[in-house]
Amino acid sequence: MTTRDECQSLDETDSLSALREEFLLDDRLIYLDGNSLGPLSRSSQRRVRQALDVQWGEGLVRSWGEAGWMEQPERLGDRMARLIGAGPEEVVVADTLTFLLAKLLGAALELRPERSVIVTDRANFHSDLYIAEGMAQLTSRGVRVVAIDRDSLDQHLNDEVAVVMLTHVDFRSGEMLDLEGITARVHEAGALMLWDFAHSTGAVPLDVTSAQVDFAAGCTYKYVNAGPGGPGFAYVAPRWQSEIRNVLPGWLGHVAPFDFEGTFRPAPGVRQLVTSSPSVLALAALEGALDVWDRVDMAEVRRKSLALTDLFIDLVEERVPGEFEVATPLDHSRRGSQVALRHQEGYGIIRALAEVGVIGDFRDPDICRFGFAPLYVRFVDVYDAVERLVDVLERGAHQRDEFRVRRAVT
Amino acid sequence: MTTRDECQSLDETDSLSALREEFLLDDRLIYLDGNSLGPLSRSSQRRVRQALDVQWGEGLVRSWGEAGWMEQPERLGDRMARLIGAGPEEVVVADTLTFLLAKLLGAALELRPERSVIVTDRANFHSDLYIAEGMAQLTSRGVRVVAIDRDSLDQHLNDEVAVVMLTHVDFRSGEMLDLEGITARVHEAGALMLWDFAHSTGAVPLDVTSAQVDFAAGCTYKYVNAGPGGPGFAYVAPRWQSEIRNVLPGWLGHVAPFDFEGTFRPAPGVRQLVTSSPSVLALAALEGALDVWDRVDMAEVRRKSLALTDLFIDLVEERVPGEFEVATPLDHSRRGSQVALRHQEGYGIIRALAEVGVIGDFRDPDICRFGFAPLYVRFVDVYDAVERLVDVLERGAHQRDEFRVRRAVT
Repeated sequence: MTTRDECQSLDETDSLSALREEFLLDDRLIYLDGNSLGPLSRSSQRRVRQALDVQWGEGLVRSWGEAGWMEQPERLGDRMARLIGAGPEEVVVADTLTFLLAKLLGAALELRPERSVIVTDRANFHSDLYIAEGMAQLTSRGVRVVAIDRDSLDQHLNDEVAVVMLTHVDFRSGEMLDLEGITARVHEAGALMLWDFAHSTGAVPLDVTSAQVDFAAGCTYKYVNAGPGGPGFAYVAPRWQSEIRNVLPGWLGHVAPFDFEGTFRPAPGVRQLVTSSPSVLALAALEGALDVWDRVDMAEVRRKSLALTDLFIDLVEERVPGEFEVATPLDHSRRGSQVALRHQEGYGIIRALAEVGVIGDFRDPDICRFGFAPLYVRFVDVYDAVERLVDVLERGAHQRDEFRVRRAVT
Repeated sequence: MTTRDECQSLDETDSLSALREEFLLDDRLIYLDGNSLGPLSRSSQRRVRQALDVQWGEGLVRSWGEAGWMEQPERLGDRMARLIGAGPEEVVVADTLTFLLAKLLGAALELRPERSVIVTDRANFHSDLYIAEGMAQLTSRGVRVVAIDRDSLDQHLNDEVAVVMLTHVDFRSGEMLDLEGITARVHEAGALMLWDFAHSTGAVPLDVTSAQVDFAAGCTYKYVNAGPGGPGFAYVAPRWQSEIRNVLPGWLGHVAPFDFEGTFRPAPGVRQLVTSSPSVLALAALEGALDVWDRVDMAEVRRKSLALTDLFIDLVEERVPGEFEVATPLDHSRRGSQVALRHQEGYGIIRALAEVGVIGDFRDPDICRFGFAPLYVRFVDVYDAVERLVDVLERGAHQRDEFRVRRAVT
């Protein structure tokens, strides 16, 4: 069994360990919920204060030009690109994930006008299901959403399918899907592939280029650490950039926004997907988060992520054998950067853990989620989290009456 | 002719004059561009720092519950409501103006399924024109946009018109339309009325209730002072709240977001219009801006706004007679809170004024725009701005070669 000393040794030799200092994390807290909301970095704090006090406070409206606010969607998109294996001018930062999915679904449906099915995973994050259904209804040309068990995808790929939209890492189980294989099979069926990278970006290495992904979108507030309600990002493969249309167009996606033309003429490339300006404060927080990411090798992140999740699973199974069902795949090739443990009293466990400084979260009906973000989670954190988990279970702290009624937690 | 001393006296007796201290404005700057981007208030600065350092930095994911992030869209909507004459639970803060227009147009079209025309003003802000056209194309049931000269509205009101979307205060000329009269005429034709309050909110008193407005939306970064890329807001009349559908639904508009249901069940009232979370930092800035507005009587704002714009127009006509064409109505009942002066060399004038500390902006082809926000613009500012304008013209500072090529300015 791994000891705490061994965990400390792992931290000492960890190439990423110094990055923890970049985050404003209370050292007494074990934060295993970066898969829901990443922590504040010193660079994000600095960038937001700069945007607030200097760019807005002093520069005022002049900062649209002088502080480069106007170009932020592409500029930050270019900085996001390496996190998903994209090139320059292939990623844009805008809106939120749900709106970007709406736009990319809208674009995909127009590229396949003779096809009328959106295939998605019935276990997808519900916002994805809602917006898919919303776009199907809105387009009123008989488009329908077929929400399937994703393991049966091949049976549903036929010449009616316009686009397949899947989330690459399952938000409940943490299962990672086969980016390249699924994309290839969708293409064989003549359909387009739209990936949701909400739980992948900054969590696992991604290569949209070699996987020949058509479209992707993600959020920035989870592993990317850009803060609550941070903007989304969208990827459009170069081969589609001049083919697509922003179905929800706005002035900031126009080729010349200040020409005030009555008709929308799209900006070249991904810029046309910008509708209106994202919050400049939110963009500043993202910029600060990316300052940290610029120093990080995703292969190192992946190596540590798997080591952390392996350690957590092993320690849980050793210390409280049979107590939990591990819903996350043990196979590395199918694992994201979180571990989901199923337990009938999971809600109380998560609440009781929070009381002793271990932050995870709960997802109905019985899933305890623990995110392991290699930029700031240490091996000793994993060790200590399991010790506290064992203590909670031994004390029965999770079985208090107040935990019988679930209150919504994020 | 009004003297500078008289302007100082006006400031001394101005009931709003103390509010200027709430804004972080360089005293050497005369900021007449709050109609594009309002300045930073001390309360917004404080609220953003609190959201950044404490809510996000320390509270982390727990702040969704503990800091009330989850309820912000309605809570801030309720605080916005008095600025437009709405009641509680009638306004929601979300997205950006363009997306909210998309949602409200989508909802209106569904409420009038037998009608297929969106009427709008061809001089409308171009993002409004783009999203109207976008929604018409997207719905693919033969909806078309008819962009008219707004003075000919009555001729275009017939039983094909589903919804009329107009901007209440023209972004170029500053002309204010007849909220109540137009709404009534649109209703007589059986159509729905959607108002864009981008240049009205915080600029002029609004009463959506007595005007029987169906839908309205606006932004918060202009006269409201919520910062660059601040969120939008939407109003839905109580009579429509249970009738509408969010055509771009997302998980935060679901009645129980944490039940993770596969089918969208809308939250009651305006909350269903929330798709995903706006930036918490942007919402904090808005909250701080509203702290200032809570202390303000809109009748006082209007009185001072008209006095400021009257003074500006009078001084310009006295000091440089015949130099400009005043594009803003002289009739108070048709004036917003900005003055538009037409001049062939307008671009150079705005650039040269910026060099001497007077910030206005330019809109093609020949409009110099000056916004007069009564919360922080003083009567002496108006006087000094005109003095500097006269000086620019006398020196010919606006005729420099570099101003011949227009660079986009916000």
